[in-house]
Amino acid sequence: MKLATYKNDSRDGQLMLVSRDLKLTCSAAPVVKTMQQLLDNWDELFEPLNERYQALCSGELLAEKFDAQKCHSPLPRAYHWADGSAYVNHVELVRRARGAEVPESFWHDPLMYQGGSDDFIGPYDDIEVPDESMGIDFEAEIAVVTADVPMGTADDHAGNFIKLLMLVNDVSLRGLIPGELAKGFGFYQSKPASSFAPVAVTPDELGDSWFDSKVHLALLTHYNNELFGKPNAGVDMTFNFNLLVAHAARTRNLGAGTIIGSGTVSNKQGTDHGSAIVHGGVGYSCIAEVRMIETIRDGQPSTAFMSNGDTVRIEMADNDGSSIFGAIEQRVKIKK
Amino acid sequence: MKLATYKNDSRDGQLMLVSRDLKLTCSAAPVVKTMQQLLDNWDELFEPLNERYQALCSGELLAEKFDAQKCHSPLPRAYHWADGSAYVNHVELVRRARGAEVPESFWHDPLMYQGGSDDFIGPYDDIEVPDESMGIDFEAEIAVVTADVPMGTADDHAGNFIKLLMLVNDVSLRGLIPGELAKGFGFYQSKPASSFAPVAVTPDELGDSWFDSKVHLALLTHYNNELFGKPNAGVDMTFNFNLLVAHAARTRNLGAGTIIGSGTVSNKQGTDHGSAIVHGGVGYSCIAEVRMIETIRDGQPSTAFMSNGDTVRIEMADNDGSSIFGAIEQRVKIKK
Repeated sequence: MKLATYKNDSRDGQLMLVSRDLKLTCSAAPVVKTMQQLLDNWDELFEPLNERYQALCSGELLAEKFDAQKCHSPLPRAYHWADGSAYVNHVELVRRARGAEVPESFWHDPLMYQGGSDDFIGPYDDIEVPDESMGIDFEAEIAVVTADVPMGTADDHAGNFIKLLMLVNDVSLRGLIPGELAKGFGFYQSKPASSFAPVAVTPDELGDSWFDSKVHLALLTHYNNELFGKPNAGVDMTFNFNLLVAHAARTRNLGAGTIIGSGTVSNKQGTDHGSAIVHGGVGYSCIAEVRMIETIRDGQPSTAFMSNGDTVRIEMADNDGSSIFGAIEQRVKIKK
Repeated sequence: MKLATYKNDSRDGQLMLVSRDLKLTCSAAPVVKTMQQLLDNWDELFEPLNERYQALCSGELLAEKFDAQKCHSPLPRAYHWADGSAYVNHVELVRRARGAEVPESFWHDPLMYQGGSDDFIGPYDDIEVPDESMGIDFEAEIAVVTADVPMGTADDHAGNFIKLLMLVNDVSLRGLIPGELAKGFGFYQSKPASSFAPVAVTPDELGDSWFDSKVHLALLTHYNNELFGKPNAGVDMTFNFNLLVAHAARTRNLGAGTIIGSGTVSNKQGTDHGSAIVHGGVGYSCIAEVRMIETIRDGQPSTAFMSNGDTVRIEMADNDGSSIFGAIEQRVKIKK
């Protein structure tokens, strides 16, 4: 099943069904009005909604053309958004660039922080930041959305609670991170509003590309209209989504609609730290990694962070080249 | 205005008006059904709801006896719960006990972490923890609830957005904190579900005790039925709520219903680090502070953290001795 949320005059928008090929859409309203209501009542609503979805895909329903520009993030606001760092290559790069080792524990105990979820922005909305000097960066990631997960759920059961997959742009303000991490309480101001690709999909929509609780497809990032990264999200993912969900639920229940992110997708591809598209590599899912490579190689970074007007596009295609989630397409706008 | 949420068969409960003396209650449903709906539409709903509240307090409405045992936390789930550490004495104690100084920046740049808000527990619900050895502790705090706060709101305007005040028990698992902080991403597993006192109140309900964006009243904590702390929440609060809200909104909008906490209330009272009730002091709002005093004095802590069956009661009385928010009364229950 594929789902989107059209913006309307309410905070939570209007839940829409979207055909598998992303061409057609119809309201989910005869069954359920919002994405959160669906997640709150997944078991009761899934079958009737799926019937409507199958009818949409087979052309039996009166449908309109799907317009991604009308979309908010699938959950315009959520009760819980926790982001892991499952691609330890990304963490290793960050640390190596500042001369620090990766502690051995990082390979079996996931890093996870909780991000703002009360004010997500839409996939085509501007990235508004108060100051260009804050080190504006994108981070292309995968995320899952869960049903209610009981405290103490083991990773081998966690998969039962994963209902949807999404793409995320976890915008980071790199200039604020060192100060915040030095304070010891983790990220807060350094993580402004995240956005998500227009369409959330049930795992079965990925077919054979979803196994071992990972998405085995390339995550495509274009920066200012040039291909910047195409790492495979199934490669070098040290902690799969089952492990991330279990980590999140160790000491708490997770409420329906909890979003758990993978962290920045990053592949080593047999090299020390991956390599750029221009050097024949799979590239990167954030600017910071390029800067770290440059720092390791040249002693200092040469690629700048994002400036006013810079754009980022994040998307994922299936094995036939068709977009699965639609695209995140955002522009940086400095808010005076 | 005083508001509570009665548990019912929905996730968000039933919004109730509670009389000033906490004796009577009536449903808010003729105006609004849930606390989140009220916060989403505060400007339009405040007046009609306040009319109903005044009628309740003056005995003009058919009302029932208020039963705090029926209450969930005022917001059973929220889109944003960020907790500051406004009482730097608390931070100083933590640091001094491990031989570290408080960085100078801590006196002008608040510490803040984001906590789980998808699964709050009620004021009388058990504190369920998977393992007694995790170092279970209470933290008695004040919190404010905001309307929508635009990004970049300055502290001298932030007060306009503070709609409600609450009491919090920000339960902490002390044994998990050092490991999590060492990873650099802040608290996550070390902060299980928080609970809030049954009644949320508009700031005017505090009369002269609410000024300079602080609550100038003692916060009373009883541990296993003995008075453990009575620090004044208006004393030694380095960052008032206006500053905490402005800090939270520096790089993001805050959605309606954002909860911002004060951190553990802690008074020095002219001593180095405050002192216990038995020594004539105002005591403490968490066990960790006592253990830190003991560590500084004796080289090691002697007071244990909470065990299965231990109870905590958190409450605040006005200058006439009447409870303002009702009480948080919880018992630790180890979940096998």
